Amino acid sequence: MPTINSPLTDDAYKVVTEALRDALIDLIDLSLLGKQAHWNVVGPRFRTIHFQLDEVVDAARKHADIVAERSATVGSPADGRAETIARDTQITRLDAGWIRDDDVVAAFTGLYEGLIARMRQRAQDVEQADPVSNNILLDVVEELEKQYWMWQAERS
Amino acid sequence: MPTINSPLTDDAYKVVTEALRDALIDLIDLSLLGKQAHWNVVGPRFRTIHFQLDEVVDAARKHADIVAERSATVGSPADGRAETIARDTQITRLDAGWIRDDDVVAAFTGLYEGLIARMRQRAQDVEQADPVSNNILLDVVEELEKQYWMWQAERS
Amino acid sequence: MPTINSPLTDDAYKVVTEALRDALIDLIDLSLLGKQAHWNVVGPRFRTIHFQLDEVVDAARKHADIVAERSATVGSPADGRAETIARDTQITRLDAGWIRDDDVVAAFTGLYEGLIARMRQRAQDVEQADPVSNNILLDVVEELEKQYWMWQAERS
Amino acid sequence: MPTINSPLTDDAYKVVTEALRDALIDLIDLSLLGKQAHWNVVGPRFRTIHFQLDEVVDAARKHADIVAERSATVGSPADGRAETIARDTQITRLDAGWIRDDDVVAAFTGLYEGLIARMRQRAQDVEQADPVSNNILLDVVEELEKQYWMWQAERS
Amino acid sequence: MPTINSPLTDDAYKVVTEALRDALIDLIDLSLLGKQAHWNVVGPRFRTIHFQLDEVVDAARKHADIVAERSATVGSPADGRAETIARDTQITRLDAGWIRDDDVVAAFTGLYEGLIARMRQRAQDVEQADPVSNNILLDVVEELEKQYWMWQAERS
Amino acid sequence: MPTINSPLTDDAYKVVTEALRDALIDLIDLSLLGKQAHWNVVGPRFRTIHFQLDEVVDAARKHADIVAERSATVGSPADGRAETIARDTQITRLDAGWIRDDDVVAAFTGLYEGLIARMRQRAQDVEQADPVSNNILLDVVEELEKQYWMWQAERS
Amino acid sequence: MPTINSPLTDDAYKVVTEALRDALIDLIDLSLLGKQAHWNVVGPRFRTIHFQLDEVVDAARKHADIVAERSATVGSPADGRAETIARDTQITRLDAGWIRDDDVVAAFTGLYEGLIARMRQRAQDVEQADPVSNNILLDVVEELEKQYWMWQAERS
Amino acid sequence: MPTINSPLTDDAYKVVTEALRDALIDLIDLSLLGKQAHWNVVGPRFRTIHFQLDEVVDAARKHADIVAERSATVGSPADGRAETIARDTQITRLDAGWIRDDDVVAAFTGLYEGLIARMRQRAQDVEQADPVSNNILLDVVEELEKQYWMWQAERS
Amino acid sequence: MPTINSPLTDDAYKVVTEALRDALIDLIDLSLLGKQAHWNVVGPRFRTIHFQLDEVVDAARKHADIVAERSATVGSPADGRAETIARDTQITRLDAGWIRDDDVVAAFTGLYEGLIARMRQRAQDVEQADPVSNNILLDVVEELEKQYWMWQAERS
Amino acid sequence: MPTINSPLTDDAYKVVTEALRDALIDLIDLSLLGKQAHWNVVGPRFRTIHFQLDEVVDAARKHADIVAERSATVGSPADGRAETIARDTQITRLDAGWIRDDDVVAAFTGLYEGLIARMRQRAQDVEQADPVSNNILLDVVEELEKQYWMWQAERS
Amino acid sequence: MPTINSPLTDDAYKVVTEALRDALIDLIDLSLLGKQAHWNVVGPRFRTIHFQLDEVVDAARKHADIVAERSATVGSPADGRAETIARDTQITRLDAGWIRDDDVVAAFTGLYEGLIARMRQRAQDVEQADPVSNNILLDVVEELEKQYWMWQAERS
Amino acid sequence: MPTINSPLTDDAYKVVTEALRDALIDLIDLSLLGKQAHWNVVGPRFRTIHFQLDEVVDAARKHADIVAERSATVGSPADGRAETIARDTQITRLDAGWIRDDDVVAAFTGLYEGLIARMRQRAQDVEQADPVSNNILLDVVEELEKQYWMWQAERS
Repeated sequence: MPTINSPLTDDAYKVVTEALRDALIDLIDLSLLGKQAHWNVVGPRFRTIHFQLDEVVDAARKHADIVAERSATVGSPADGRAETIARDTQITRLDAGWIRDDDVVAAFTGLYEGLIARMRQRAQDVEQADPVSNNILLDVVEELEKQYWMWQAERS
Repeated sequence: MPTINSPLTDDAYKVVTEALRDALIDLIDLSLLGKQAHWNVVGPRFRTIHFQLDEVVDAARKHADIVAERSATVGSPADGRAETIARDTQITRLDAGWIRDDDVVAAFTGLYEGLIARMRQRAQDVEQADPVSNNILLDVVEELEKQYWMWQAERS
Repeated sequence: MPTINSPLTDDAYKVVTEALRDALIDLIDLSLLGKQAHWNVVGPRFRTIHFQLDEVVDAARKHADIVAERSATVGSPADGRAETIARDTQITRLDAGWIRDDDVVAAFTGLYEGLIARMRQRAQDVEQADPVSNNILLDVVEELEKQYWMWQAERS
Repeated sequence: MPTINSPLTDDAYKVVTEALRDALIDLIDLSLLGKQAHWNVVGPRFRTIHFQLDEVVDAARKHADIVAERSATVGSPADGRAETIARDTQITRLDAGWIRDDDVVAAFTGLYEGLIARMRQRAQDVEQADPVSNNILLDVVEELEKQYWMWQAERS
Repeated sequence: MPTINSPLTDDAYKVVTEALRDALIDLIDLSLLGKQAHWNVVGPRFRTIHFQLDEVVDAARKHADIVAERSATVGSPADGRAETIARDTQITRLDAGWIRDDDVVAAFTGLYEGLIARMRQRAQDVEQADPVSNNILLDVVEELEKQYWMWQAERS
Repeated sequence: MPTINSPLTDDAYKVVTEALRDALIDLIDLSLLGKQAHWNVVGPRFRTIHFQLDEVVDAARKHADIVAERSATVGSPADGRAETIARDTQITRLDAGWIRDDDVVAAFTGLYEGLIARMRQRAQDVEQADPVSNNILLDVVEELEKQYWMWQAERS
Repeated sequence: MPTINSPLTDDAYKVVTEALRDALIDLIDLSLLGKQAHWNVVGPRFRTIHFQLDEVVDAARKHADIVAERSATVGSPADGRAETIARDTQITRLDAGWIRDDDVVAAFTGLYEGLIARMRQRAQDVEQADPVSNNILLDVVEELEKQYWMWQAERS
Repeated sequence: MPTINSPLTDDAYKVVTEALRDALIDLIDLSLLGKQAHWNVVGPRFRTIHFQLDEVVDAARKHADIVAERSATVGSPADGRAETIARDTQITRLDAGWIRDDDVVAAFTGLYEGLIARMRQRAQDVEQADPVSNNILLDVVEELEKQYWMWQAERS
Repeated sequence: MPTINSPLTDDAYKVVTEALRDALIDLIDLSLLGKQAHWNVVGPRFRTIHFQLDEVVDAARKHADIVAERSATVGSPADGRAETIARDTQITRLDAGWIRDDDVVAAFTGLYEGLIARMRQRAQDVEQADPVSNNILLDVVEELEKQYWMWQAERS
Repeated sequence: MPTINSPLTDDAYKVVTEALRDALIDLIDLSLLGKQAHWNVVGPRFRTIHFQLDEVVDAARKHADIVAERSATVGSPADGRAETIARDTQITRLDAGWIRDDDVVAAFTGLYEGLIARMRQRAQDVEQADPVSNNILLDVVEELEKQYWMWQAERS
Repeated sequence: MPTINSPLTDDAYKVVTEALRDALIDLIDLSLLGKQAHWNVVGPRFRTIHFQLDEVVDAARKHADIVAERSATVGSPADGRAETIARDTQITRLDAGWIRDDDVVAAFTGLYEGLIARMRQRAQDVEQADPVSNNILLDVVEELEKQYWMWQAERS
Repeated sequence: MPTINSPLTDDAYKVVTEALRDALIDLIDLSLLGKQAHWNVVGPRFRTIHFQLDEVVDAARKHADIVAERSATVGSPADGRAETIARDTQITRLDAGWIRDDDVVAAFTGLYEGLIARMRQRAQDVEQADPVSNNILLDVVEELEKQYWMWQAERS
């Protein structure tokens, strides 16, 4: 079986692949929760929130793909299976069932704070070890912080 | 909080929402496993399999969305959270790590048989209760069976 | 003058063309009322409702065209003239004049219940006589029920 | 409920909204009759007339939307409901049923003369009161007169 | 050599693959005859008929591909070779040489009656055995019947 | 240095270039204030207002360009520098800082009244002197009045 | 042979068709001379002038078509034959052969003055008789004057 | 003034530029007559002929541009001015005024015979002297002969 | 019935129409066999061969249409009916049923040799009689030879 | 009123928002001056400079939007009002009136030096405090420096 | 290793592959020099020349690809490696460093003469041996001669 | 002759332009070798490798253009002439002639290791001197490393 050579030193490899692994879990879970709320939101702002969540999901899926392929690129297979996400995610759960539009805004506003803090930390952790992964993670931070602004701005 | 009226009788509601709930779990898990293999496949057929898996993922995501919105439409919130998928999925797990191209073909050929049988059963279960959901599930069956043909056809 | 041969038996012809005639009246009237509300809605959700109504109108026009051409196809000329709609429609009237956004949501939520019930009945009526018309009407039902979910979900 | 301020004086308001109201009725009815003939035309020129009528309908719908939104803009809600059209339209009715291609050409050639005369009069009526509405109605006249040329040119 | 597993029972397999095989022959022959007339039509309606025939050919080719791939999907190789079509087609032959526009309309109007009856029968034959193939064949019927209406409508 | 000949008489030149100069200042300032509110709006209607303002800005920029190029065309250089706008604009200032969604709607509803009145006056002023500039300014009026309707319609 | 009814009175007809006939001749000749210079220009600004002339030709052809179809619409056949243009054009001839870029600019700057004056006069002539033709001719004037600005602006 | 070097010998230059000059005149005149008939055709086939003529004009304009630029490329300025066309064209004139659809078909069928013969001769004349121009002229012949087939095919 | 005049002499007509008739048969049969293999190929290179065959079919259909219309253009009706292909084709038959990917490559590599030789001969046969048909057939040769390179290049 | 949480420490907040505020002023003023010159440039290079300035304006507007939204994202409202630009801009003023093409090139070449120096400084100032803003400002620098090269390169 | 059969005789093979090999070297070198000048041109016509060179490069790359694939098609591998180009090119070198716009025009005008002469010779050399390659090379000549006209036309 | 001012200090200038010069050579040579293999690859994976190489070439050409324009931007002319590439490239040569698919994969897998190491070093070298060039080179590294993963992944 072919093996993928890492362009990184062993130390850098450990730091970078750990950061990418954790970032992938956050991003896949964000995409699943975004769809969950997309389907179950109710309330006067239904359409606005419904479509906003699809943009969140599209961005999360795109970044998850970039992060996972970067992981493979630096020599470590990616792990995005349901049981891995369910076991290791750090994002607060949404309850099952219908969810009011204001509660969607509150719930998502709430989860971005931790999400951004973790993602900023990962970007910083890899800065020396791999500036390419650093750039990739900063792009994720930029997008997440912009979304966070928008969620905050539309609280009622 | 607004409630969504079901156009179905109570009996039909029970049959239909159960079928849609299970179909959703199969489809989301297929999309996660498709990406898992997309990232980790290695071997001479890397590119062919890598791109074929993205088509599988795109179709699974599209159908998951249609199925989940049909569930909301007939009055039952959808549940696509990671822990639900991890707990209830009936698809055989992929191991973590790199996976050879021939093994990807074998693994996917293997999982479609059960997947198609379950989906055909669901389509049949809802035929009387809700012909609209029946049509939606038959479209899923048509796509899955076509993919199954292709996976079989390219076994070495 | 050429005559259009019907691929249906006489009994089937009677059942199918009656169902299509009534479906056409419902769909054209829905498109006229959708535009009526599109122009006259006022209130904080003006833009959301204004654009949502255009999607309702676009879908209704598309389905009206398919239904009317199916009617011609099975040998019966279609009738979509204003006086026919005004005389035979079963949809509750909107009053003339400005209409608040919440009232638009309430009015449309209200009219879909009957609309869907009638359309489901028509689909069922033609199931034996003409499976092609059955498929066409089930597509209409699927779209209307999805719109109905959305109208309900955004009630305040 | 919000009220829409008119940028027009009371006198101008009366003249302009009356002209727009009548123009809207003509345009919606033209779109309904265009579809009626689109579905029911028969004869050797079936395809040519069938597609030409869709262009008539598209233009009529586009202009109806512009006219109705101008009406709302100058402070008067628009009225495009089926019973309003049926009651107030000045266009000669088409009979129900199949209609030969030559008869479609004759019928439409016949109805444009009055339609254009009325629309020209409305454009002139509002010229002093509201040059913006005047421009909108002149665009309608330009399109209708061009269609009228084409209907005349293809008489057999 | 890989074998393609059929998702159908043996009885269903026999019914379904026979229906698909015959549908494929009809559709390929329709596409060949459509081109034949496309090239050889003469008369005042040359352009109208010339382009209409290309639409017939495009639809027939698209449906032939869907039908043949469904056949492979349910485990039976497709057969669309010239000698198979020539030997087994049930569509009346066109003579070689130029053909007047009215004669094209008459010839095609004539051949759709049998074509539609056979295709409707096939759809019915597979309804119990395989609802997916049933849907595919009903889509073919819908398209053919619509074309048949148009051919009839333009007879002189 | 080339000089641009004016197609206008001296009297017409004075009236027309003055009207175009003032229209340009209004339009550029509208585009700057639209962006200001686009960035700083907060509240439950954040997304709706945020995107609506971008449409206002796009239209204002497009019309500013047309007006300025018309000014050059009739022989007078355009002046759209920041200090000119700051010194000569007649639109009420927005305060710096965050601004609630309802306040955005109120502020913009408020500023259109004067804006439209001035623009209508300019269109009237140039009507005799230059019908081309008259047409250009009437297009601006049509757009502004339509936006004004929408702002009014969505007041809460 | 069908006759095209004019929506104009006899007096208006005479004024309008004469203006349109002369406008057509100017526009076709402009398109021919634009191509002539497009092919034969030489000098350091070759590419800039070469492409600018194609824009002149495209606009002239588009307006010629609108003017000629308006002529047919108001009941008078259009005349755009080579001998008519050659006999009646009022635009100064270009000599045959290569032409330097500066000379192209000078020649075209020179011919627009008369062209615009004649076109403005025609627009004014038809203002009372037919406001639709007036609008069409003002659009031509707007385009020609903008081109004239650009030709002037780039004189060396 | 720059001079354009010819890649041809003097003898070849004479033969080639003469052929291109004459081809250009034929093609420009064809485009003018095509528009003439496009505007003035009347009769039941109005729309069919009206659009067909636009295709003739588009092809003629495209080929005229290629031919004229080839002339410049081989060192000879092109001449497409109205008086040159009027003086040197060999195509039979159309009378002014309305022209019936059948007469358009007859007139155009009539003029292609000479047009094609001349164009074939030119292609042959330049075959030895410049194979590039030969290819360009054969493309013109191919297009003209295809149009000629279509005009003939639709004679009534 | 209209007759299509040939721009060719009688001798040329005979040579050219015979070459085009035979080329058409080869091209239609290639398109049918390409689809046959597209549907029935199995093996590890399934996807690569499956899509490559669609490109072969698209090119063959496009060239068949050009060749057949050229035949009509030079005065001879085209014949592309199934029985004509089955009777006159010179391409070796494919057996019915599944076909391994390597065998597809071998079979197609095998059939191009004769196909190209025949097509080159036809191009040569018509070179004097009709350079336009010669160009058309050389384009076919160029495409076929390029495909032949690719089939050969991917033999294992 | 919702408040936007800053993901930055207080010290970082002060540094970053100041840099973004100043960058915004530079970019908006560049867009206004770019349009100013776009409208008023004269001289032989009119078209080249006219279009180049539109690219400058498009880039400046795009970057202004990104910078302002980043400012909101990190918790500080943006300020892009005309009086703020007029008061705080550091870019040298353009005089009103026509401006020769060479002078445009000289003026813009002159203003980029300071503009780039300030923007580089800001990027450096925020490097520690916020790598995301650092990336955004470096993108601005890259674009401005590329434009600066082009302005220099085309000096005469 | 598969071998690519040549459809050519041995003598033809030698002539054709030699011509294609040399044409490929000219075309790749033209694309490299085009980019070289694209990057380093300075002077008032910077933008015009900068973009014109990209068109030269795009055409050269496209033709290089066609020529190289034709070489493979007729059985000879292509050679486009840097050292081959550097060793065998016949195009005069450009010096390193900045190059004035007038000098770019002069340098490129200068190199086309030889380039065209060589390419014309190659087209002629292969005419008997392979008319397909002849057509390919004549297309290259047509494009190069057109570019040569344009370079000459814009000399100052 | 205009000179391009560098925004860099002299020391930074030396470091940055050297890095960009070497990066340009690597990228142009990669694009030439990519095409070389694109044309000459043979073997069962011909199509897969053939198209993958075109993606490599497209990316290399795009990055070469960005790198070369950055060099000009910071004041140093770029050098991408064939002899420069041939003399200074550090990439291992490919032999002339056909090359098997597995050998292409091996050869390209082999050359990326050095390519990536050199490009990473250059990115690091310029980090202090010019963060903009650093970003550009990191984008190149990201792309190259992703391609390297893919080449490795498909080794047999």
